[in-house]
Amino acid sequence: MQSLTNEQRLAMWLNQTGFSLPSPAEPKGLYRPVVVCNNLAYTSGHLPVDASGQMIKGTVGQDLTEEQGRQAAVWAGLGILSSLRATLGNLNAVRRVIKITGLVQSAPGFHGQPAVLNGCSQLFAEVFGPENGVGVRTAFGTPTLPLGAAVEIEAIFELGTE
Amino acid sequence: MQSLTNEQRLAMWLNQTGFSLPSPAEPKGLYRPVVVCNNLAYTSGHLPVDASGQMIKGTVGQDLTEEQGRQAAVWAGLGILSSLRATLGNLNAVRRVIKITGLVQSAPGFHGQPAVLNGCSQLFAEVFGPENGVGVRTAFGTPTLPLGAAVEIEAIFELGTE
Amino acid sequence: MQSLTNEQRLAMWLNQTGFSLPSPAEPKGLYRPVVVCNNLAYTSGHLPVDASGQMIKGTVGQDLTEEQGRQAAVWAGLGILSSLRATLGNLNAVRRVIKITGLVQSAPGFHGQPAVLNGCSQLFAEVFGPENGVGVRTAFGTPTLPLGAAVEIEAIFELGTE
Repeated sequence: MQSLTNEQRLAMWLNQTGFSLPSPAEPKGLYRPVVVCNNLAYTSGHLPVDASGQMIKGTVGQDLTEEQGRQAAVWAGLGILSSLRATLGNLNAVRRVIKITGLVQSAPGFHGQPAVLNGCSQLFAEVFGPENGVGVRTAFGTPTLPLGAAVEIEAIFELGTE
Repeated sequence: MQSLTNEQRLAMWLNQTGFSLPSPAEPKGLYRPVVVCNNLAYTSGHLPVDASGQMIKGTVGQDLTEEQGRQAAVWAGLGILSSLRATLGNLNAVRRVIKITGLVQSAPGFHGQPAVLNGCSQLFAEVFGPENGVGVRTAFGTPTLPLGAAVEIEAIFELGTE
Repeated sequence: MQSLTNEQRLAMWLNQTGFSLPSPAEPKGLYRPVVVCNNLAYTSGHLPVDASGQMIKGTVGQDLTEEQGRQAAVWAGLGILSSLRATLGNLNAVRRVIKITGLVQSAPGFHGQPAVLNGCSQLFAEVFGPENGVGVRTAFGTPTLPLGAAVEIEAIFELGTE
Protein backbone atom coordinates (compact mmCIF):
# COMPACT_ATOMS: atom_id res chain seq x y z
CA MET A 1 0.00 0.00 0.00
CA GLN A 2 2.78 2.44 0.87
CA SER A 3 3.81 3.12 -2.71
CA LEU A 4 0.30 3.95 -3.88
CA THR A 5 -0.79 7.58 -4.03
CA ASN A 6 -3.64 8.99 -1.95
CA GLU A 7 -5.77 9.22 -5.10
CA GLN A 8 -5.08 5.58 -5.94
CA ARG A 9 -5.96 4.44 -2.42
CA LEU A 10 -9.18 6.50 -2.53
CA ALA A 11 -10.15 4.96 -5.89
CA MET A 12 -9.50 1.46 -4.51
CA TRP A 13 -11.51 2.14 -1.38
CA LEU A 14 -14.46 3.56 -3.31
CA ASN A 15 -14.34 0.55 -5.63
CA GLN A 16 -14.27 -1.94 -2.75
CA THR A 17 -17.01 -0.34 -0.68
CA GLY A 18 -19.42 0.94 -3.31
CA PHE A 19 -19.35 4.47 -1.86
CA SER A 20 -18.79 7.35 -4.26
CA LEU A 21 -17.48 10.83 -3.67
CA PRO A 22 -20.18 13.47 -3.15
CA SER A 23 -19.96 16.83 -4.92
CA PRO A 24 -17.92 19.44 -3.04
CA ALA A 25 -20.09 20.80 -0.21
CA GLU A 26 -21.89 24.05 -0.81
CA PRO A 27 -21.36 26.47 2.09
CA LYS A 28 -24.48 26.98 4.23
CA GLY A 29 -23.28 30.48 5.14
CA LEU A 30 -20.52 32.98 4.53
CA TYR A 31 -17.45 30.75 4.66
CA ARG A 32 -15.14 28.62 2.52
CA PRO A 33 -14.93 24.82 2.56
CA VAL A 34 -11.10 24.88 2.77
CA VAL A 35 -8.44 27.49 3.57
CA VAL A 36 -4.74 26.83 3.06
CA CYS A 37 -2.34 28.68 5.36
CA ASN A 38 1.38 27.96 5.61
CA ASN A 39 1.59 24.18 5.07
CA LEU A 40 -1.81 23.39 6.57
CA ALA A 41 -5.26 23.00 5.03
CA TYR A 42 -8.10 23.85 7.42
CA THR A 43 -11.58 22.63 6.53
CA SER A 44 -14.98 23.88 7.59
CA GLY A 45 -17.28 21.63 9.56
CA HIS A 46 -18.72 19.25 6.96
CA LEU A 47 -22.21 17.80 7.23
CA PRO A 48 -22.93 14.28 5.91
CA VAL A 49 -24.23 14.49 2.34
CA ASP A 50 -24.44 11.28 0.34
CA ALA A 51 -23.60 10.82 -3.34
CA SER A 52 -27.16 11.69 -4.36
CA GLY A 53 -26.89 15.02 -2.54
CA GLN A 54 -29.16 13.95 0.34
CA MET A 55 -28.17 15.14 3.81
CA ILE A 56 -28.21 12.49 6.55
CA LYS A 57 -30.28 14.01 9.32
CA GLY A 58 -31.35 12.68 12.69
CA THR A 59 -30.25 12.11 16.24
CA VAL A 60 -27.95 9.17 16.97
CA GLY A 61 -29.29 7.00 19.79
CA GLN A 62 -32.85 8.02 18.88
CA ASP A 63 -33.66 8.31 15.13
CA LEU A 64 -30.42 6.70 14.02
CA THR A 65 -28.43 3.74 15.32
CA GLU A 66 -24.73 3.99 16.13
CA GLU A 67 -24.00 2.16 12.86
CA GLN A 68 -26.10 4.66 10.89
CA GLY A 69 -24.16 7.42 12.65
CA ARG A 70 -20.92 5.73 11.60
CA GLN A 71 -22.12 5.72 7.98
CA ALA A 72 -22.95 9.42 8.28
CA ALA A 73 -19.39 10.01 9.51
CA VAL A 74 -18.09 8.26 6.39
CA TRP A 75 -20.13 10.63 4.21
CA ALA A 76 -18.91 13.67 6.13
CA GLY A 77 -15.34 12.39 5.67
CA LEU A 78 -15.92 11.88 1.94
CA GLY A 79 -17.30 15.42 1.79
CA ILE A 80 -14.07 16.70 3.32
CA LEU A 81 -12.04 14.79 0.72
CA SER A 82 -14.23 16.18 -2.05
CA SER A 83 -13.74 19.76 -0.80
CA LEU A 84 -10.00 19.21 -0.40
CA ARG A 85 -9.68 17.89 -3.93
CA ALA A 86 -11.67 20.83 -5.29
CA THR A 87 -9.27 23.23 -3.55
CA LEU A 88 -5.95 21.43 -4.05
CA GLY A 89 -6.52 19.84 -7.46
CA ASN A 90 -5.94 16.35 -6.11
CA LEU A 91 -5.40 14.60 -2.82
CA ASN A 92 -1.77 13.73 -3.49
CA ALA A 93 -0.89 17.19 -2.19
CA VAL A 94 -1.89 15.99 1.31
CA ARG A 95 0.95 14.69 3.42
CA ARG A 96 -0.95 13.69 6.55
CA VAL A 97 -3.95 14.17 8.80
CA ILE A 98 -3.21 16.42 11.77
CA LYS A 99 -6.56 16.63 13.51
CA ILE A 100 -10.23 15.71 13.25
CA THR A 101 -12.94 17.31 15.37
CA GLY A 102 -16.19 15.39 15.19
CA LEU A 103 -19.61 16.27 16.58
CA VAL A 104 -22.43 13.78 16.77
CA GLN A 105 -26.05 14.91 17.11
CA SER A 106 -26.76 12.77 20.15
CA ALA A 107 -29.75 11.67 22.20
CA PRO A 108 -29.51 12.13 25.98
CA GLY A 109 -27.44 9.28 27.38
CA PHE A 110 -25.76 8.38 24.06
CA HIS A 111 -22.01 8.22 24.67
CA GLY A 112 -20.77 6.25 21.63
CA GLN A 113 -19.34 9.26 19.78
CA PRO A 114 -15.88 7.62 19.36
CA ALA A 115 -17.42 4.62 17.54
CA VAL A 116 -19.44 6.94 15.30
CA LEU A 117 -16.41 9.06 14.42
CA ASN A 118 -14.40 5.95 13.57
CA GLY A 119 -16.34 5.94 10.29
CA CYS A 120 -14.38 9.01 9.23
CA SER A 121 -11.14 8.00 10.94
CA GLN A 122 -11.07 4.63 9.15
CA LEU A 123 -11.72 6.30 5.80
CA PHE A 124 -8.80 8.68 6.31
CA ALA A 125 -6.53 5.83 7.47
CA GLU A 126 -7.38 3.96 4.24
CA VAL A 127 -6.87 6.94 1.94
CA PHE A 128 -3.76 8.49 3.51
CA GLY A 129 -2.31 5.28 4.92
CA PRO A 130 -2.08 3.89 8.47
CA GLU A 131 0.82 6.16 9.38
CA ASN A 132 -0.16 9.47 7.75
CA GLY A 133 -3.91 9.05 7.90
CA VAL A 134 -4.25 8.99 11.68
CA GLY A 135 -4.05 12.27 13.62
CA VAL A 136 -5.37 13.59 16.89
CA ARG A 137 -9.11 13.67 17.44
CA THR A 138 -11.77 15.26 19.61
CA ALA A 139 -15.25 13.71 19.55
CA PHE A 140 -18.33 14.85 21.40
CA GLY A 141 -22.10 14.89 21.28
CA THR A 142 -24.53 17.78 21.13
CA PRO A 143 -28.33 17.84 20.69
CA THR A 144 -28.42 20.45 17.92
CA LEU A 145 -26.35 20.44 14.76
CA PRO A 146 -26.96 22.74 11.77
CA LEU A 147 -29.95 21.63 9.67
CA GLY A 148 -30.44 18.64 11.98
CA ALA A 149 -27.45 16.81 10.50
CA ALA A 150 -26.41 13.56 12.21
CA VAL A 151 -22.73 14.51 12.41
CA GLU A 152 -20.40 17.41 11.63
CA ILE A 153 -16.68 16.94 11.08
CA GLU A 154 -13.83 19.39 10.52
CA ALA A 155 -10.19 18.54 9.88
CA ILE A 156 -6.68 19.95 9.57
CA PHE A 157 -4.25 18.42 7.06
CA GLU A 158 -0.57 18.95 6.50
CA LEU A 159 0.33 19.51 2.86
CA GLY A 160 3.51 18.55 1.02
CA THR A 161 5.31 15.36 0.12
CA GLU A 162 7.76 13.49 2.30
CA MET B 1 -13.07 48.99 -1.07
CA GLN B 2 -9.84 47.07 -1.69
CA SER B 3 -7.55 50.03 -1.09
CA LEU B 4 -9.01 50.87 2.31
CA THR B 5 -7.35 49.52 5.45
CA ASN B 6 -9.06 47.16 7.88
CA GLU B 7 -9.33 50.00 10.39
CA GLN B 8 -10.96 52.26 7.80
CA ARG B 9 -13.45 49.59 6.80
CA LEU B 10 -14.29 48.95 10.48
CA ALA B 11 -14.83 52.67 11.10
CA MET B 12 -17.12 52.88 8.04
CA TRP B 13 -19.09 49.83 9.11
CA LEU B 14 -19.56 51.12 12.67
CA ASN B 15 -20.64 54.46 11.26
CA GLN B 16 -23.18 52.90 8.88
CA THR B 17 -24.71 50.46 11.34
CA GLY B 18 -24.63 52.40 14.60
CA PHE B 19 -22.78 49.60 16.41
CA SER B 20 -19.74 50.53 18.46
CA LEU B 21 -16.78 48.49 19.56
CA PRO B 22 -17.10 47.00 23.07
CA SER B 23 -14.19 47.18 25.49
CA PRO B 24 -11.72 44.30 25.16
CA ALA B 25 -13.27 41.24 26.86
CA GLU B 26 -12.18 40.51 30.40
CA PRO B 27 -11.20 36.84 30.78
CA LYS B 28 -13.70 34.80 32.82
CA GLY B 29 -10.92 32.46 33.94
CA LEU B 30 -7.20 31.83 33.66
CA TYR B 31 -6.60 32.55 29.98
CA ARG B 32 -5.70 35.30 27.50
CA PRO B 33 -8.04 36.85 24.93
CA VAL B 34 -5.45 36.48 22.13
CA VAL B 35 -2.20 34.56 21.63
CA VAL B 36 0.08 35.15 18.65
CA CYS B 37 2.18 32.20 17.49
CA ASN B 38 4.17 32.13 14.26
CA ASN B 39 2.04 34.20 11.84
CA LEU B 40 -1.29 33.29 13.43
CA ALA B 41 -3.40 35.00 16.09
CA TYR B 42 -5.59 32.57 18.06
CA THR B 43 -8.48 34.04 20.06
CA SER B 44 -10.33 32.68 23.05
CA GLY B 45 -14.03 31.93 22.77
CA HIS B 46 -15.70 35.35 23.00
CA LEU B 47 -19.12 35.86 24.54
CA PRO B 48 -21.46 38.57 23.19
CA VAL B 49 -21.03 41.76 25.20
CA ASP B 50 -22.59 44.94 23.87
CA ALA B 51 -21.09 48.43 23.92
CA SER B 52 -22.63 49.14 27.34
CA GLY B 53 -20.89 46.07 28.77
CA GLN B 54 -24.09 43.99 28.99
CA MET B 55 -23.80 40.31 28.10
CA ILE B 56 -26.45 38.96 25.74
CA LYS B 57 -27.80 35.88 27.47
CA GLY B 58 -30.51 33.43 26.52
CA THR B 59 -31.30 30.40 24.42
CA VAL B 60 -31.88 30.89 20.70
CA GLY B 61 -35.14 29.31 19.56
CA GLN B 62 -36.60 29.84 23.03
CA ASP B 63 -35.74 33.14 24.79
CA LEU B 64 -34.20 34.70 21.70
CA THR B 65 -35.19 34.71 18.03
CA GLU B 66 -32.76 33.71 15.29
CA GLU B 67 -32.37 37.42 14.46
CA GLN B 68 -31.52 38.22 18.10
CA GLY B 69 -28.99 35.40 17.96
CA ARG B 70 -27.53 36.93 14.80
CA GLN B 71 -27.15 40.27 16.64
CA ALA B 72 -25.41 38.46 19.50
CA ALA B 73 -22.99 36.96 16.96
CA VAL B 74 -22.21 40.48 15.72
CA TRP B 75 -21.36 41.53 19.29
CA ALA B 76 -19.17 38.47 19.82
CA GLY B 77 -17.40 39.28 16.54
CA LEU B 78 -16.89 42.90 17.61
CA GLY B 79 -15.50 41.59 20.91
CA ILE B 80 -12.96 39.55 18.96
CA LEU B 81 -11.95 42.63 16.95
CA SER B 82 -11.64 44.62 20.18
CA SER B 83 -9.39 41.98 21.74
CA LEU B 84 -7.32 41.69 18.57
CA ARG B 85 -6.77 45.43 18.42
CA ALA B 86 -5.79 45.51 22.09
CA THR B 87 -3.16 42.83 21.41
CA LEU B 88 -1.90 43.90 17.99
CA GLY B 89 -2.18 47.69 18.30
CA ASN B 90 -4.49 47.92 15.30
CA LEU B 91 -6.36 45.67 12.93
CA ASN B 92 -4.21 46.50 9.91
CA ALA B 93 -1.80 43.81 11.14
CA VAL B 94 -4.41 41.18 10.19
CA ARG B 95 -4.01 39.72 6.74
CA ARG B 96 -7.00 37.37 6.66
CA VAL B 97 -9.47 35.25 8.55
CA ILE B 98 -8.49 31.58 8.65
CA LYS B 99 -11.23 30.05 10.77
CA ILE B 100 -14.26 30.81 12.92
CA THR B 101 -15.77 28.33 15.34
CA GLY B 102 -19.18 29.44 16.54
CA LEU B 103 -21.42 27.93 19.23
CA VAL B 104 -25.03 28.92 19.65
CA GLN B 105 -26.90 28.28 22.91
CA SER B 106 -29.78 26.45 21.27
CA ALA B 107 -33.22 25.17 22.20
CA PRO B 108 -34.00 21.55 21.34
CA GLY B 109 -34.90 21.42 17.67
CA PHE B 110 -33.24 24.72 16.73
CA HIS B 111 -30.97 24.09 13.75
CA GLY B 112 -30.40 27.61 12.39
CA GLN B 113 -26.85 27.98 13.75
CA PRO B 114 -25.41 28.91 10.31
CA ALA B 115 -27.81 31.87 9.99
CA VAL B 116 -26.94 33.01 13.54
CA LEU B 117 -23.19 32.81 12.89
CA ASN B 118 -23.55 34.81 9.69
CA GLY B 119 -23.80 37.85 11.96
CA CYS B 120 -20.12 37.45 12.77
CA SER B 121 -19.12 36.19 9.31
CA GLN B 122 -20.67 39.22 7.59
CA LEU B 123 -18.92 41.58 10.00
CA PHE B 124 -15.54 40.00 9.26
CA ALA B 125 -16.23 40.07 5.51
CA GLU B 126 -16.95 43.81 5.77
CA VAL B 127 -13.91 44.63 7.90
CA PHE B 128 -11.28 42.43 6.21
CA GLY B 129 -12.84 42.45 2.75
CA PRO B 130 -14.75 39.82 0.77
CA GLU B 131 -11.59 37.92 -0.15
CA ASN B 132 -9.58 38.04 3.08
CA GLY B 133 -12.48 38.24 5.51
CA VAL B 134 -13.98 34.83 4.74
CA GLY B 135 -12.37 31.70 6.15
CA VAL B 136 -13.51 28.21 7.10
CA ARG B 137 -16.21 27.84 9.72
CA THR B 138 -17.71 25.30 12.09
CA ALA B 139 -21.09 26.15 13.66
CA PHE B 140 -23.05 24.11 16.14
CA GLY B 141 -25.57 24.34 18.93
CA THR B 142 -25.32 23.36 22.57
CA PRO B 143 -27.74 23.89 25.49
CA THR B 144 -25.19 25.30 27.94
CA LEU B 145 -22.72 28.09 27.26
CA PRO B 146 -20.67 29.86 29.94
CA LEU B 147 -22.75 32.34 31.97
CA GLY B 148 -25.78 31.53 29.83
CA ALA B 149 -24.43 33.53 26.87
CA ALA B 150 -26.40 33.30 23.62
CA VAL B 151 -23.32 32.58 21.48
CA GLU B 152 -19.60 31.97 21.82
CA ILE B 153 -17.17 32.52 18.96
CA GLU B 154 -13.44 31.88 18.60
CA ALA B 155 -11.29 32.66 15.58
CA ILE B 156 -7.88 32.23 14.01
CA PHE B 157 -6.37 35.04 11.92
CA GLU B 158 -3.30 35.18 9.72
CA LEU B 159 -1.12 38.22 10.38
CA GLY B 160 1.04 40.15 7.95
CA THR B 161 0.52 42.24 4.87
CA GLU B 162 0.27 40.97 1.33
CA MET C 1 10.18 29.90 39.78
CA GLN C 2 11.38 31.13 36.40
CA SER C 3 14.64 29.22 36.49
CA LEU C 4 13.02 25.86 37.19
CA THR C 5 12.24 23.51 34.31
CA ASN C 6 8.72 22.39 33.43
CA GLU C 7 9.55 18.92 34.75
CA GLN C 8 10.76 20.37 38.06
CA ARG C 9 7.64 22.51 38.44
CA LEU C 10 5.43 19.49 37.67
CA ALA C 11 7.27 17.38 40.27
CA MET C 12 6.85 20.14 42.86
CA TRP C 13 3.16 20.54 42.09
CA LEU C 14 2.51 16.79 42.30
CA ASN C 15 4.40 16.69 45.58
CA GLN C 16 2.44 19.60 47.06
CA THR C 17 -1.01 18.47 45.97
CA GLY C 18 -0.79 14.70 46.30
CA PHE C 19 -1.93 14.16 42.70
CA SER C 20 0.07 11.80 40.53
CA LEU C 21 0.42 11.54 36.79
CA PRO C 22 -1.92 9.00 35.17
CA SER C 23 -0.62 6.62 32.52
CA PRO C 24 -0.69 8.02 28.99
CA ALA C 25 -4.30 7.82 27.73
CA GLU C 26 -5.20 4.90 25.53
CA PRO C 27 -7.04 6.06 22.39
CA LYS C 28 -10.76 5.15 22.40
CA GLY C 29 -10.73 5.04 18.59
CA LEU C 30 -8.49 5.42 15.56
CA TYR C 31 -6.40 8.42 16.55
CA ARG C 32 -3.18 9.47 18.28
CA PRO C 33 -2.91 11.24 21.65
CA VAL C 34 -0.45 13.84 20.27
CA VAL C 35 0.70 14.96 16.81
CA VAL C 36 3.63 17.32 16.31
CA CYS C 37 3.54 19.54 13.22
CA ASN C 38 5.93 22.41 12.58
CA ASN C 39 6.60 23.81 16.08
CA LEU C 40 3.21 22.88 17.51
CA ALA C 41 1.99 19.84 19.44
CA TYR C 42 -1.74 19.17 18.97
CA THR C 43 -3.42 16.85 21.47
CA SER C 44 -6.57 14.79 21.18
CA GLY C 45 -9.50 15.49 23.45
CA HIS C 46 -8.50 13.91 26.79
CA LEU C 47 -11.03 12.43 29.19
CA PRO C 48 -10.41 12.62 32.96
CA VAL C 49 -8.70 9.42 34.14
CA ASP C 50 -7.29 9.37 37.65
CA ALA C 51 -4.00 7.78 38.76
CA SER C 52 -5.73 4.44 39.42
CA GLY C 53 -7.00 4.38 35.83
CA GLN C 54 -10.62 5.18 36.78
CA MET C 55 -12.52 7.52 34.47
CA ILE C 56 -14.43 10.33 36.17
CA LYS C 57 -17.91 10.11 34.75
CA GLY C 58 -21.06 12.11 35.43
CA THR C 59 -22.86 15.32 34.64
CA VAL C 60 -21.72 18.51 36.34
CA GLY C 61 -24.60 20.33 38.01
CA GLN C 62 -26.40 17.02 38.51
CA ASP C 63 -24.25 13.99 39.50
CA LEU C 64 -21.16 16.09 40.19
CA THR C 65 -20.62 19.45 41.85
CA GLU C 66 -18.69 22.25 40.20
CA GLU C 67 -15.74 21.43 42.47
CA GLN C 68 -15.84 17.76 41.41
CA GLY C 69 -15.90 18.96 37.81
CA ARG C 70 -12.86 21.12 38.54
CA GLN C 71 -11.04 18.06 39.89
CA ALA C 72 -11.96 16.15 36.74
CA ALA C 73 -10.45 18.99 34.71
CA VAL C 74 -7.21 18.60 36.70
CA TRP C 75 -7.13 14.90 35.80
CA ALA C 76 -7.80 15.62 32.13
CA GLY C 77 -4.97 18.17 32.21
CA LEU C 78 -2.64 15.66 33.86
CA GLY C 79 -3.60 13.17 31.15
CA ILE C 80 -2.55 15.70 28.51
CA LEU C 81 0.79 16.18 30.26
CA SER C 82 1.25 12.41 30.45
CA SER C 83 0.54 12.01 26.73
CA LEU C 84 2.84 14.92 25.87
CA ARG C 85 5.68 13.44 27.90
CA ALA C 86 5.17 10.05 26.24
CA THR C 87 5.48 11.70 22.82
CA LEU C 88 8.18 14.30 23.48
CA GLY C 89 10.33 12.45 26.01
CA ASN C 90 9.87 15.13 28.61
CA LEU C 91 7.93 18.32 29.16
CA ASN C 92 10.95 20.61 28.93
CA ALA C 93 10.45 20.53 25.16
CA VAL C 94 7.28 22.62 25.64
CA ARG C 95 7.74 26.35 25.31
CA ARG C 96 4.20 27.53 26.03
CA VAL C 97 0.49 26.81 26.00
CA ILE C 98 -1.25 28.22 22.93
CA LYS C 99 -4.83 27.05 23.40
CA ILE C 100 -7.12 24.90 25.52
CA THR C 101 -10.57 23.81 24.40
CA GLY C 102 -12.59 22.39 27.27
CA LEU C 103 -15.97 20.68 27.24
CA VAL C 104 -17.96 20.03 30.39
CA GLN C 105 -20.74 17.42 30.47
CA SER C 106 -23.34 19.78 31.84
CA ALA C 107 -26.83 19.60 33.29
CA PRO C 108 -29.45 21.95 31.81
CA GLY C 109 -28.94 25.37 33.33
CA PHE C 110 -25.34 24.75 34.46
CA HIS C 111 -23.20 27.63 33.19
CA GLY C 112 -20.08 27.36 35.37
CA GLN C 113 -17.85 25.85 32.66
CA PRO C 114 -15.12 28.52 33.12
CA ALA C 115 -14.74 27.63 36.83
CA VAL C 116 -14.57 23.91 35.98
CA LEU C 117 -11.93 24.44 33.29
CA ASN C 118 -9.82 26.52 35.66
CA GLY C 119 -8.75 23.18 37.18
CA CYS C 120 -6.76 22.48 34.03
CA SER C 121 -5.75 26.10 33.40
CA GLN C 122 -4.27 26.44 36.91
CA LEU C 123 -2.35 23.20 36.50
CA PHE C 124 -0.82 24.40 33.23
CA ALA C 125 0.01 27.80 34.76
CA GLU C 126 1.86 26.00 37.60
CA VAL C 127 3.75 23.61 35.33
CA PHE C 128 4.67 25.97 32.48
CA GLY C 129 4.77 29.16 34.54
CA PRO C 130 2.42 32.15 34.78
CA GLU C 131 3.67 33.65 31.51
CA ASN C 132 4.04 30.59 29.26
CA GLY C 133 1.37 28.42 30.87
CA VAL C 134 -1.61 30.61 30.03
CA GLY C 135 -3.00 30.59 26.49
CA VAL C 136 -6.35 31.24 24.86
CA ARG C 137 -9.33 29.12 25.88
CA THR C 138 -12.79 28.12 24.76
CA ALA C 139 -15.07 26.47 27.33
CA PHE C 140 -18.56 25.16 26.82
CA GLY C 141 -21.06 22.62 28.08
CA THR C 142 -22.73 19.74 26.30
CA PRO C 143 -25.01 16.97 27.63
CA THR C 144 -23.15 14.05 26.03
CA LEU C 145 -19.43 13.40 26.17
CA PRO C 146 -17.77 10.14 25.10
CA LEU C 147 -18.25 7.35 27.65
CA GLY C 148 -20.14 9.73 29.90
CA ALA C 149 -16.95 11.52 30.97
CA ALA C 150 -17.35 14.63 33.11
CA VAL C 151 -15.01 16.76 30.98
CA GLU C 152 -12.97 16.56 27.78
CA ILE C 153 -9.99 18.83 27.12
CA GLU C 154 -7.74 19.28 24.09
CA ALA C 155 -4.75 21.59 23.82
CA ILE C 156 -2.18 23.07 21.47
CA PHE C 157 1.37 23.72 22.72
CA GLU C 158 4.29 25.53 21.15
CA LEU C 159 7.54 23.56 21.31
CA GLY C 160 11.08 24.87 21.61
CA THR C 161 13.09 26.80 24.13
CA GLU C 162 13.27 30.55 24.43
